[in-house]
Amino acid sequence: MSRIDGRTPDQLRPVTIQRGWSKHAEGSVLVSFGDTKVLCTASVTEGVPRWRKGSGEGWVTAEYAMLPRATNTRGDRESVRGKIGGRTHEISRLIGRSLRAVIDYKALGENTIVLDCDVLQADGGTRTAAITGAYVALADAVAWAQRKKLVKHGRHPLTGTVSAVSVGIVDGVPLLDLCYEEDVRAETDMNVVCTGDGRFVEVQGTAEAQPFARAELDALLDLAVKGSADLDAAQRAALEQTM
Amino acid sequence: MSRIDGRTPDQLRPVTIQRGWSKHAEGSVLVSFGDTKVLCTASVTEGVPRWRKGSGEGWVTAEYAMLPRATNTRGDRESVRGKIGGRTHEISRLIGRSLRAVIDYKALGENTIVLDCDVLQADGGTRTAAITGAYVALADAVAWAQRKKLVKHGRHPLTGTVSAVSVGIVDGVPLLDLCYEEDVRAETDMNVVCTGDGRFVEVQGTAEAQPFARAELDALLDLAVKGSADLDAAQRAALEQTM
Amino acid sequence: MSRIDGRTPDQLRPVTIQRGWSKHAEGSVLVSFGDTKVLCTASVTEGVPRWRKGSGEGWVTAEYAMLPRATNTRGDRESVRGKIGGRTHEISRLIGRSLRAVIDYKALGENTIVLDCDVLQADGGTRTAAITGAYVALADAVAWAQRKKLVKHGRHPLTGTVSAVSVGIVDGVPLLDLCYEEDVRAETDMNVVCTGDGRFVEVQGTAEAQPFARAELDALLDLAVKGSADLDAAQRAALEQTM
Amino acid sequence: MSRIDGRTPDQLRPVTIQRGWSKHAEGSVLVSFGDTKVLCTASVTEGVPRWRKGSGEGWVTAEYAMLPRATNTRGDRESVRGKIGGRTHEISRLIGRSLRAVIDYKALGENTIVLDCDVLQADGGTRTAAITGAYVALADAVAWAQRKKLVKHGRHPLTGTVSAVSVGIVDGVPLLDLCYEEDVRAETDMNVVCTGDGRFVEVQGTAEAQPFARAELDALLDLAVKGSADLDAAQRAALEQTM
Amino acid sequence: MSRIDGRTPDQLRPVTIQRGWSKHAEGSVLVSFGDTKVLCTASVTEGVPRWRKGSGEGWVTAEYAMLPRATNTRGDRESVRGKIGGRTHEISRLIGRSLRAVIDYKALGENTIVLDCDVLQADGGTRTAAITGAYVALADAVAWAQRKKLVKHGRHPLTGTVSAVSVGIVDGVPLLDLCYEEDVRAETDMNVVCTGDGRFVEVQGTAEAQPFARAELDALLDLAVKGSADLDAAQRAALEQTM
Amino acid sequence: MSRIDGRTPDQLRPVTIQRGWSKHAEGSVLVSFGDTKVLCTASVTEGVPRWRKGSGEGWVTAEYAMLPRATNTRGDRESVRGKIGGRTHEISRLIGRSLRAVIDYKALGENTIVLDCDVLQADGGTRTAAITGAYVALADAVAWAQRKKLVKHGRHPLTGTVSAVSVGIVDGVPLLDLCYEEDVRAETDMNVVCTGDGRFVEVQGTAEAQPFARAELDALLDLAVKGSADLDAAQRAALEQTM
Repeated sequence: MSRIDGRTPDQLRPVTIQRGWSKHAEGSVLVSFGDTKVLCTASVTEGVPRWRKGSGEGWVTAEYAMLPRATNTRGDRESVRGKIGGRTHEISRLIGRSLRAVIDYKALGENTIVLDCDVLQADGGTRTAAITGAYVALADAVAWAQRKKLVKHGRHPLTGTVSAVSVGIVDGVPLLDLCYEEDVRAETDMNVVCTGDGRFVEVQGTAEAQPFARAELDALLDLAVKGSADLDAAQRAALEQTM
Repeated sequence: MSRIDGRTPDQLRPVTIQRGWSKHAEGSVLVSFGDTKVLCTASVTEGVPRWRKGSGEGWVTAEYAMLPRATNTRGDRESVRGKIGGRTHEISRLIGRSLRAVIDYKALGENTIVLDCDVLQADGGTRTAAITGAYVALADAVAWAQRKKLVKHGRHPLTGTVSAVSVGIVDGVPLLDLCYEEDVRAETDMNVVCTGDGRFVEVQGTAEAQPFARAELDALLDLAVKGSADLDAAQRAALEQTM
Repeated sequence: MSRIDGRTPDQLRPVTIQRGWSKHAEGSVLVSFGDTKVLCTASVTEGVPRWRKGSGEGWVTAEYAMLPRATNTRGDRESVRGKIGGRTHEISRLIGRSLRAVIDYKALGENTIVLDCDVLQADGGTRTAAITGAYVALADAVAWAQRKKLVKHGRHPLTGTVSAVSVGIVDGVPLLDLCYEEDVRAETDMNVVCTGDGRFVEVQGTAEAQPFARAELDALLDLAVKGSADLDAAQRAALEQTM
Repeated sequence: MSRIDGRTPDQLRPVTIQRGWSKHAEGSVLVSFGDTKVLCTASVTEGVPRWRKGSGEGWVTAEYAMLPRATNTRGDRESVRGKIGGRTHEISRLIGRSLRAVIDYKALGENTIVLDCDVLQADGGTRTAAITGAYVALADAVAWAQRKKLVKHGRHPLTGTVSAVSVGIVDGVPLLDLCYEEDVRAETDMNVVCTGDGRFVEVQGTAEAQPFARAELDALLDLAVKGSADLDAAQRAALEQTM
Repeated sequence: MSRIDGRTPDQLRPVTIQRGWSKHAEGSVLVSFGDTKVLCTASVTEGVPRWRKGSGEGWVTAEYAMLPRATNTRGDRESVRGKIGGRTHEISRLIGRSLRAVIDYKALGENTIVLDCDVLQADGGTRTAAITGAYVALADAVAWAQRKKLVKHGRHPLTGTVSAVSVGIVDGVPLLDLCYEEDVRAETDMNVVCTGDGRFVEVQGTAEAQPFARAELDALLDLAVKGSADLDAAQRAALEQTM
Repeated sequence: MSRIDGRTPDQLRPVTIQRGWSKHAEGSVLVSFGDTKVLCTASVTEGVPRWRKGSGEGWVTAEYAMLPRATNTRGDRESVRGKIGGRTHEISRLIGRSLRAVIDYKALGENTIVLDCDVLQADGGTRTAAITGAYVALADAVAWAQRKKLVKHGRHPLTGTVSAVSVGIVDGVPLLDLCYEEDVRAETDMNVVCTGDGRFVEVQGTAEAQPFARAELDALLDLAVKGSADLDAAQRAALEQTM
């Protein structure tokens, strides 16, 4: 069985990670997973939120959003509606937690890094692309902070790498990195955030149509670990390029 | 090693499910998992949201909230702040999805059931208690709708049972149904929603301190399946009582 | 003429005042006036709002809310609508003023007590039950603050007791403590807040159908004073029990 | 003892009622109670809110607001803060209820009248001036609707007249129509809404400093009835003038 | 060709500027341009917004609003809708900028003046009347601050005078100071803010129906400069009167 | 005198107009004026807002927004703050008016086109780049609607072309198309929207530091007309390319 776009079940869509996209941000990446394009910027500011002052520890947080016409049908702007939807909140929180999993707060010192992940075009997997791109933007921002001496010598603020990928069961077959059309048809849908050494940061599986069995869950996790390793390689390749 | 409250690692806290708590709601349950107490009410209304009209299918949704002093420190009311926090949104969505997993929309007909899960006292596991209690309130509401002939004879609107439990790793030991004190100390925290026949509806695992390995994930899933079976028994026992 | 529930015109519904309902709050009471059930919690925090800092005086405030399915028909959550309705605001302010009438701010010192009154089930008289229960929660919270030495020896922060009751004219007959069905049919409706020594803190009378004459107003006030004395006794009895 | 402005205890401040203030509104009145000035406009629209459609009955509602610099110190605009304060809500509701007490909904037919009461300058008694002026604007709007044949011949939509006045105890003396300086010093403060025939529509008394005794309450009610009669005369005089 | 109200094309409507309208505000003006009436109050407070503290410089800002029934059809209150409309924001910002153009921040010292411009009745040109009246209120507020010694001797905080007028092309003819009926029919509409010495502070021209040519633009600017000179004279006359 | 980036006073920054940027939108353009980059998408929907139904006429509207890190310092998201700022509102309205100036509503038929202009990177002139790019996206969307037969044969819905440019006086010299650094230093700042045949749609000039004289205004208008002609050429070139 071949997929809509000709991929094998365990194949990622073409992944591109373009660093230095913005002239203003301390780290900025335009990441694409196929037709899904997310602009991830990392903004460094000295100081931390009030509840963390004097702790000697830094903070990392994230905000996710979608341009109104990133999708096939135009959506209302959340700024116009005057409130953020549940889905937006949920994804912003997921991205923040995922990146904090590889941050050494003490080593970061009392600095705050905000990751903005704005989906310019959506075709499934926007949150996983966002996490994968945001990690690279974060790495660039940390390097900037080190060059500016905001971060002291010694322990590196990043304790590892992190990326994310979606997996799901479509017509009974476990597939890696679902595009929108596959996502809509998936019986089960899972987003998995892994570190570069193959451990889990987040596992979020949802039965869309039918509850799923343990064996299905295991097959999806296998697939996700495989995809994560591929993304980890793509991130490393991008970070090795000179800008 | 014994737990704070003397439980074994795979033991639930005392679970009580008190049906018929409210005189107004079509289904209402005061559920407690130890000191966590959640009031779950199910409200049936004829008709469905606009986007579903004419489909012949019903709808089930949920709203979760916490009383300001359900916790050790008083929290601001979301109604006073004028917006719902990300955590509230996320849990409301989780409860709704979990219950919809066992609903046959066609059999329900064009009726809407809203589950309100209000945490009166919190001591860890509020979302899992909410799902477990809400299922029982939902079952009572469906029975009410059948008695009132809102739901036609034939297929039963409920296709199975559903419950939820938290699991986590504390000091390296996988534990079932974390209380607040354990939850705070957990390295990894997972909420698992299962059907009565042991399949998964939702799996949400988060590395709080350290990314977790596949073996740890497997141990947690085993524990969750065990706890789910216990909760399923408690739900059945509650539903067999005459009110 | 006998009332719907068999009471005499000057008879309260069964009143229960259950102290220590919540494990977290410094004072907590589940109060019921017949089928009306309100959970009142008192939260003590050191310090006062900014506008009162350095005055040496404390502050007491209240927030009232209703669970969505406390009533016969489910109401929208105010947190979801994003704003608090006029009725909620009005009752919150009334409860706060009523309790402040028996507070000696100087004796309380720079501490703040917030009373949360959440209606779990509504059957008329929710604001009067809330005030009556909140007083008891407040008394427990003050006692807690004294034990914790937040409040200094000397003058007692409570200068008296306070309770509230509704009265109304139904089919030409003045009645005490209206249940929902009576409230709906009342020509005139009045909420009266009294101190234990029979003086008035608040008198709020509204002509629902017909403007009312001075003689009717006098009859209602007489009835309210009688009911207040009964509630005062119930509060004292509750506070004399050891928890 | 003489009052700040030389009045006797049972004397109103100079009251002026200027009809036809606005060229656009169907009824419009600039009312002043001493230095308190409120612009009251009545807007008539055909049709009623959705919940009242097909009932054959009309609706009357009110909105109260204060210009930011109506008071001695500038207040924030509620439109800028993004929400209406509790006090504003409470007064808007009071004005609406007061006017509806003299409306025959059937006679009004399916028309809606909105009263806007905007305080241009505040010196105590803004809500009582608003009700008193709004009644006159309402009467003009009803007359307009009759001329335009929106309201049918037969029963008059107004069943009586209504006005409001504040009373309070200052330094132990019951006073009528408090100005701001008196209001601030009042031990007890009461707003009373009366019909022209001396019956009560609303009685709202609040102990500002000390709970008050029944005798004090009686004295205040006497004073309010007296003031209401004076206001009724002023309203009639205004309505008799040709515009 | 004569205008609706008999004016010549280059003639202003009757302009009145009534100072000292409010007893509370440091400066207050009821300005009318024909049937357009705007209440402008200037509130002086010591100190400046946080971002300006320690600069030694003052701040001037403005808020514009319209009473709900200032117009022919009642509009919703922005406080009730919970947000300020784009038009309101835009005009508030325009008024603020216009007044700041004649302020010497250093001479004003660390004081803030807020101009509230509330439209009581609208008949076209509300923003231009607001600017023209607000300038006079501002001048009175500055004089008050000088008398109170909030502003030091030396340079005068006002570096000039400022007024505003609308111009437009109706049926091909350039007209000064459009009333509502003309405004609706205008092909091109321009608001021009000028200083007393004939220079421009703001020029905002909009093609309502047809793009306009350079010659038309020039004719409108000529007309605006003429009208500004007339308004400047009216402002000076008002300020020369003793209050 | 040479400019920061070496341009002559009447020279635009490099302008690029990349059509077909998004796979979902009916028209989409990534426009850049130097380092200012704006993504403009045009979304076509059948039908019009309620107030326009049955008129046979279409509608065009626009929303402008900025990504949080489009600027040198990260700004708060308007969706998070829960309201749209005045500047955003003002620019959205300007873009909408500018495009509507070249729309024949009758020819468009009852279709709505929404232009979303999201600033990805800001370096001055974001609103003028947005208008210039949005026109091209609009043209593509109209062509799409014609191909889909949503728009009938006959009159073309576009009556002309429109573009916008900023001009300003820096150190006494009138300059075309200010970059951020010039914009900050400008004494006078003007945004001019012109049709392709050199007429004006909007003229918005603001004295930032000093009121400006008629001669300065004339010089700026000359410059703007020149820049508009250049932009018109760039738009035409882009639209002539086959996608």
